[in-house]
Amino acid sequence: MALWMRFEHAGQMKFGILSGDFITVHQGNMFSRPTPTNEQVDIAAVKLLTPTQPSKFICLWNNFNMLASKLSLSIPKEPLYFIKASTSCLPGDASIRRPRSYDGKVIFEGELGVVIGKECRRVPEVDVREHIFGYTCVNDVTAVELLHKDGTFTQWTRAKSFDTFGVFGPVIATDLEPEGLVVQSHLNGTKRQDYPVSDMIFSPYRLVSMISQDVSLVPGDVIACGTNVGVGSMKPGSTIEISIEGIGILSNTYE
Amino acid sequence: MALWMRFEHAGQMKFGILSGDFITVHQGNMFSRPTPTNEQVDIAAVKLLTPTQPSKFICLWNNFNMLASKLSLSIPKEPLYFIKASTSCLPGDASIRRPRSYDGKVIFEGELGVVIGKECRRVPEVDVREHIFGYTCVNDVTAVELLHKDGTFTQWTRAKSFDTFGVFGPVIATDLEPEGLVVQSHLNGTKRQDYPVSDMIFSPYRLVSMISQDVSLVPGDVIACGTNVGVGSMKPGSTIEISIEGIGILSNTYE
Repeated sequence: MALWMRFEHAGQMKFGILSGDFITVHQGNMFSRPTPTNEQVDIAAVKLLTPTQPSKFICLWNNFNMLASKLSLSIPKEPLYFIKASTSCLPGDASIRRPRSYDGKVIFEGELGVVIGKECRRVPEVDVREHIFGYTCVNDVTAVELLHKDGTFTQWTRAKSFDTFGVFGPVIATDLEPEGLVVQSHLNGTKRQDYPVSDMIFSPYRLVSMISQDVSLVPGDVIACGTNVGVGSMKPGSTIEISIEGIGILSNTYE
Repeated sequence: MALWMRFEHAGQMKFGILSGDFITVHQGNMFSRPTPTNEQVDIAAVKLLTPTQPSKFICLWNNFNMLASKLSLSIPKEPLYFIKASTSCLPGDASIRRPRSYDGKVIFEGELGVVIGKECRRVPEVDVREHIFGYTCVNDVTAVELLHKDGTFTQWTRAKSFDTFGVFGPVIATDLEPEGLVVQSHLNGTKRQDYPVSDMIFSPYRLVSMISQDVSLVPGDVIACGTNVGVGSMKPGSTIEISIEGIGILSNTYE
């Protein structure tokens, strides 16, 4: 298992593997035989970047049994998804910003993110594992009052795509088995979400397989697997942490 | 006015300005002081590429008065939009492919596309013009029976994001005034759409200004301004042309 991260150090963008407090800087392509350099960097000396720059940030709706039951939603037959704008991407430690063009509630949604490592086109479920690079924490921030503001068109893209609303990181953990993972969200230190990935309607492997029937997935793409019970709104000044044991803690402030 | 295009020639990706049958190859950044080279290439010797590789391909729904009236849709107060996957992008002359995972109707939608030239963040409408690089033809191909297949979630992203469904080109025309343009679609040589851009509910300038209040727009991003009356389904073997005088003809086959 490795924890990959992308970061800024000494004015340069770098990537590498985190071990303890040090990052071994690598060169080349993170997804295709990256090679280690001799450079080691103290984690305290870097500024986090999002671990990838996804060409697509795909997000699931209604993908957990507990939440579907709570909201009396029917269990979908196929994954229901939308795309968050790539310009919304924000790494850990940075500030999620209240949009100036919206003054309603803004909520956090803690999620597991799947990061694609190899191009996927119609990949059977049994072959998905080798196409996944690893897993990350996602905060799918949402301007929730926009969703149903227009009665004729649910504004998934707009509500989820404001700059700074696509939070993921701090690392990508490879060689994890997703089924045993637990996603937690803490708002100002208080636990608000604590749910098992095993409650998913479509598992990570199944999602990648089914979505790859429709669209090509490419290295660095992120699939946020949807959220479960416990989401809530953030007030300016809040700290929000999404954590998954084995991956890490994605910590942000909301301004 | 210039007609910019991106293409493959002699195994290399190039871009330049089309004049008559020849392209003057340029180097550097298409959006920031590109410089001409001495190379001229015959248009007959190139393979078209999409004129940009957009980080975001934003598409409008319900943005024309005639279509809203025909479908008894209310006039929206704000632009209603979704994002097409970047992996769906397809240039002119290439084949739109029927998805293997869907066997329903596939329709063409002829549209005007706005191509962003300078980063836009909360740009007032009067300042939009200088942020637009130019205009292109868009065919917003749609697996229309997926849209409402699930009664709880309209699948805009999925229906519009299959590989090869994001067709645009063949060029970007700069220094056009969009208000006077007319969009036409011909299916197998028969005219099916013929509508004025002036029938838009939100004009191109207004769209860029309003959408930039929500999300940052970056050079190369495409905003497809929505379609109007006359869309229809394509049968395998069809030829579909979207044309706008002053820009060109975006021609594709459907397989």
